[in-house]
Amino acid sequence: MNDVKAYIEANKDRFLDELFQLIRIPSISAESEHKPDMVRCAEQWKEFLLQAGCDKAEVMPSAGNPVVFGQKIIDPAKPTVLVYGHYDVMPVAPLELWRTSPFEPVIKDGKIWARGADDDKGQSFMQAKAFEFMVRTNQLPCNVKFMIEGEEEIGSGSLYGFCEEHKELLKSDVILVCDTSMIAPDVPSITSGLRGLCYWEVEVTGANHDLHSGIYGGAVANPINILCKMIAGLHDEDNHITIPGFYDDVLVISDEERALMAQAPFNEEAYKKELDIKAVHGEKGYTTKERTGIRPCLDICGIWGGHTGEGSKTVLPSKAYAKISTRLVANQDYNKISELFQRYFESIAPECVTVKVTPCHGGAAYVSPLEMKAYKAAEKAMETTYGKRPIPTRSGGSIPIVAGFEKILGTKSILMGFGLGSDDIHAPNENYPLEQFFKGIETIPYFYQYFAE
Amino acid sequence: MNDVKAYIEANKDRFLDELFQLIRIPSISAESEHKPDMVRCAEQWKEFLLQAGCDKAEVMPSAGNPVVFGQKIIDPAKPTVLVYGHYDVMPVAPLELWRTSPFEPVIKDGKIWARGADDDKGQSFMQAKAFEFMVRTNQLPCNVKFMIEGEEEIGSGSLYGFCEEHKELLKSDVILVCDTSMIAPDVPSITSGLRGLCYWEVEVTGANHDLHSGIYGGAVANPINILCKMIAGLHDEDNHITIPGFYDDVLVISDEERALMAQAPFNEEAYKKELDIKAVHGEKGYTTKERTGIRPCLDICGIWGGHTGEGSKTVLPSKAYAKISTRLVANQDYNKISELFQRYFESIAPECVTVKVTPCHGGAAYVSPLEMKAYKAAEKAMETTYGKRPIPTRSGGSIPIVAGFEKILGTKSILMGFGLGSDDIHAPNENYPLEQFFKGIETIPYFYQYFAE
Repeated sequence: MNDVKAYIEANKDRFLDELFQLIRIPSISAESEHKPDMVRCAEQWKEFLLQAGCDKAEVMPSAGNPVVFGQKIIDPAKPTVLVYGHYDVMPVAPLELWRTSPFEPVIKDGKIWARGADDDKGQSFMQAKAFEFMVRTNQLPCNVKFMIEGEEEIGSGSLYGFCEEHKELLKSDVILVCDTSMIAPDVPSITSGLRGLCYWEVEVTGANHDLHSGIYGGAVANPINILCKMIAGLHDEDNHITIPGFYDDVLVISDEERALMAQAPFNEEAYKKELDIKAVHGEKGYTTKERTGIRPCLDICGIWGGHTGEGSKTVLPSKAYAKISTRLVANQDYNKISELFQRYFESIAPECVTVKVTPCHGGAAYVSPLEMKAYKAAEKAMETTYGKRPIPTRSGGSIPIVAGFEKILGTKSILMGFGLGSDDIHAPNENYPLEQFFKGIETIPYFYQYFAE
Repeated sequence: MNDVKAYIEANKDRFLDELFQLIRIPSISAESEHKPDMVRCAEQWKEFLLQAGCDKAEVMPSAGNPVVFGQKIIDPAKPTVLVYGHYDVMPVAPLELWRTSPFEPVIKDGKIWARGADDDKGQSFMQAKAFEFMVRTNQLPCNVKFMIEGEEEIGSGSLYGFCEEHKELLKSDVILVCDTSMIAPDVPSITSGLRGLCYWEVEVTGANHDLHSGIYGGAVANPINILCKMIAGLHDEDNHITIPGFYDDVLVISDEERALMAQAPFNEEAYKKELDIKAVHGEKGYTTKERTGIRPCLDICGIWGGHTGEGSKTVLPSKAYAKISTRLVANQDYNKISELFQRYFESIAPECVTVKVTPCHGGAAYVSPLEMKAYKAAEKAMETTYGKRPIPTRSGGSIPIVAGFEKILGTKSILMGFGLGSDDIHAPNENYPLEQFFKGIETIPYFYQYFAE
């Protein structure tokens, strides 16, 4: 891959200018008011894929937000890489915590500050620019297909059907995903496992309307009190999840593998300092990295009910709500977990309230074997540009569609991401270091080269 | 009191028209944006007091919202009644549950529908119109003073100082309060006891910013999970409050008095049906009426944290909040309870989070002896207009300033309210039956007559 650094240096301002055009489109998939932005963002991606060198590119319909597909077939006998990314982003609330406007990217302190700067506009755009370099310098060693979707942040609901429908079009030898992080700018790593996900919204109803907390308080169930008690009961004193059957299918990691994982650099004091916490908190018997890497967990992602505004309104509310998610590990089946949770949560509701559980989305965990050719190619690519061998890590995050790709398309994915833990994806002040952005563009062509060898 | 019914009949349209002018001013004391409305509402009250027959009336400053004071002194040798009411109202959220606009009163099904229709614009305006009747028909038997405040719904914070400052001006023989309810339109009752109140806002902080629930979930404390656990721990399995020392000063009611109270008509099946609940829920060992009348309770009036909007955002939030209130009974001291709660809530916080407790407001419980002259006068007044003797009841609600009046001014209050349990005060679709409004205006003059005898 001759002159990749020089190519980046010569074009970097344009790369950023193009990326910023994508970022400025507020493509928040969770908020229905942004439907038109989803289409605008997909159309913009199509243009960029054609400019980068695709033979064809189109915005294809799905059951939900459109999918951008593009390809360049150089020789059917050569291997094919399917690039996966997503153009949708997370919501931005609470807006008051952002130091810059989330959809007006700013470069400061060597980083791009904006929603989507990393996840996944920044990271997926690295793939487009690495592809452009190989095309324009006549060094493309593989066929390339792009599939950029618009529902990753809400569970890729429509992409499963899209894959079923377009199996032949999406046929490839490996799927390359840049949507994960590495340990540190000088500690390259490849994500060899992802957690799965299951998400519900629950509604607890007491009386049929809000009541005066004096007249009724103490005699009529308060749905917030009850919801808190029900949520509290989902963990025991050791922070094990109490849902019967929840751990039944959890893949038990051998002591040897746990010992290997423990060698990855991790400084718990620095971790606590960065988060400004006095103590970590998790399942008894596991380390922090194990708690996020090989063990499932259950988090309340949101809760609301009663008077949440200014002042001290004395009300006994009619309803309370929570958004509850679990992160799953191999071999937990998210459909089974969804049913177990729903049944259990309904079973622990006292007679004085009614409970409604609405499953939102789910996805399976994924494990990438270290022995496969694509993993070796990614390892060698990072070694080439970083000068050191990347460490395999298990991410606590989820990209549910990755397990879906394996099931529907029969194709393994490689998770070579360049994000950092400090990028604050899904949070206010998301950012992406320029160094990571350019290093990604530099590294990706080597993956193609080694994978094609 | 000659011709009170005829006077009401002849003037009822004007009475309603005037009341609606008060209601249309959105005097929500809990929301600072309504500061100008508080002043407008006080000025309107002043005008109505002058029109009704006060010798003088003025809008007087306090440390917070102004207080409307008016008086008519007919003979210093005669007894003086101090009328207390409040012109402020509760917030109106959730607005989408209102069937009519909260500040545009509508008469339908024999009721006035609006915020403040009962609490307390409707009920306090009855006092003004009863006074007007006595003045215009030359039947006023007592001196009368009016004190209408603007902070009752947020704890009457400024009225304590106002009373301290104006002890002489506010001197009276009894304080007449119309801000409570009666059992049913055909079952008159007088509130002989009120619960006290203590209110806090709590904030639980985990990491210093919102985190990705996949990357960190299971290893870093989720403040919502923790807050739920802390809240759940505030009650034991028998629904006793677990705060050490909480019950120490609770006045124990004798078995004889409990037996008397049990004679008040109460249909638990109808109560459950009206609220649409399968079961009541409260402290073990007490009936529903006892739970709200003679026992304290603890309710979460509001809770919020994380993603509360549309869609399934996977976030591990930095903060979670709750608004927590207790209703107190005689002889609990709300300052002591406030400290006990704060100390206990901070003590049960695990090391992985930080907790901040902010006391909001509080007030003592109040008991009105059935033997005092003013109680007897109210009893006889209701007997005159309803044809049956009113039942003494203990309300679960709180009017903290009533205990304050006794302490500061040395004057007992009489709580002769005409609201109904179905008026939905503090809730969407607050309403006040016309029958109750006019019956109040009819009954109040008899109270003056019997009190002056």
